[in-house]
Amino acid sequence: MNLQRAGATRARRAIEIIPLTGIGEVVPGDDLAATILAGIEASGTALIAGDILVVTQKIVSKAEGRFVALDAVTPGEEALRLAAITRKDPRLVELVLRESTTILRAVPHVLITRHRLGLVMANAGIDRSNIGPGGAERALLLPEDPDRSAAGIADALAMSGPRPAVVISDSFGRPWRMGVTAVGIGAAGLPALHDRRGEVDRDGRTLEVTQVAIADLIASAAALATGEGAEGVPAVIVRNYPFEGESRPAADLNRPLAEDLFQ
Amino acid sequence: MNLQRAGATRARRAIEIIPLTGIGEVVPGDDLAATILAGIEASGTALIAGDILVVTQKIVSKAEGRFVALDAVTPGEEALRLAAITRKDPRLVELVLRESTTILRAVPHVLITRHRLGLVMANAGIDRSNIGPGGAERALLLPEDPDRSAAGIADALAMSGPRPAVVISDSFGRPWRMGVTAVGIGAAGLPALHDRRGEVDRDGRTLEVTQVAIADLIASAAALATGEGAEGVPAVIVRNYPFEGESRPAADLNRPLAEDLFQ
Repeated sequence: MNLQRAGATRARRAIEIIPLTGIGEVVPGDDLAATILAGIEASGTALIAGDILVVTQKIVSKAEGRFVALDAVTPGEEALRLAAITRKDPRLVELVLRESTTILRAVPHVLITRHRLGLVMANAGIDRSNIGPGGAERALLLPEDPDRSAAGIADALAMSGPRPAVVISDSFGRPWRMGVTAVGIGAAGLPALHDRRGEVDRDGRTLEVTQVAIADLIASAAALATGEGAEGVPAVIVRNYPFEGESRPAADLNRPLAEDLFQ
Repeated sequence: MNLQRAGATRARRAIEIIPLTGIGEVVPGDDLAATILAGIEASGTALIAGDILVVTQKIVSKAEGRFVALDAVTPGEEALRLAAITRKDPRLVELVLRESTTILRAVPHVLITRHRLGLVMANAGIDRSNIGPGGAERALLLPEDPDRSAAGIADALAMSGPRPAVVISDSFGRPWRMGVTAVGIGAAGLPALHDRRGEVDRDGRTLEVTQVAIADLIASAAALATGEGAEGVPAVIVRNYPFEGESRPAADLNRPLAEDLFQ
């Protein structure tokens, strides 16, 4: 962010959020980097140094084959109990439990847990809107390791051009506020959490705000172009955002439950 | 968002986040719309139809003269008690209490309340980093009514060009996640909360995500350019974001405490 401070009195370039259109349906086993590269070309651009590629979680999960056929899921006792409370499909609840380490809230229509990745979210981020081959109901889990997925996409793209930073985004609800925004659940090549402790502002005072959730800001900016990822824009490029600091994964954004300030 | 759905197979324009540089120190009584207009010109652009102007809370509060001299604040009994717990300045705690309706958490170094505006936040959003005339310590409160402030800026700018949508942004911490992002605490001319209930996705299925916190997404996108508002970029234009829906205030984003799903 030195550019931002140094540039206070000059005109600065606009940050651009470039929607990647023309990325078709992604299926298990797809080479997602190649699919995205084709989408970048179809959108009339090419990656340049400093670009941040934002990829919505859903296409990462699809490419990684994270589907589960609901008919193959047998709910256990705890899932049946929580399904009765939440009025949700017991098979879905079983999957949520398998993906979670802690149950935080179970009331009618609401099941909030801490995902094994450390994310506190509804339904363990599982999407069940997708219908698979033959009309069988399927659920789609989060990627196994979104930080690794992000690094893999960055590495693959680096073989044909500059290595972009990559953020994998997902829609999230929040306590106390209505509506969803987006967060970064995976990141590579940029500091997902930028620690500015020790830096000073232009008056020479120590910054009040010392840790910035860069990956969440990037994911939210990208969400302006992706909608909820259901509208044919499953990836965007964020260009001209002058980040600095070492690469840190999105896992850094998970606050340990015991340290939560709001609880 | 119809543009997003209809445009899935065409290249779409990039959304731009245009930093407004050259806005100097804002002081009480300033005509903020005029100051911003000068900043827009100094940044080599002009407002066009559909633009969203994002203004950081701090300069709105400054222009509205929301300073309080800490020496003039006498802490009451409750403020003294909470100051001892939180190890904060009792005068600051007194101001927080005056600005709040509910105390949610008071532990060492942390004081979280529900602001009279409905926002759940630390220290009632009060900034005390500013030093006033003569070196006296001052605190800066949130605008009295940020939705009204946003509408006032939009109305004033409409006298010399197209009326922009306006979002007043602030940095916010979140439960369970590290680092700050930004939210919209005031809005005019766009749906701060966009209700998409009843809409369907491109497969004809009802959308899973039905309410989108547009003003928070816009504020977070803008935060990529403003930093934390301390770096000489206190306002930005978000251009080419195709929003629709009726104008709704940022107050819509406050979830009533009793309805909170995560608690």
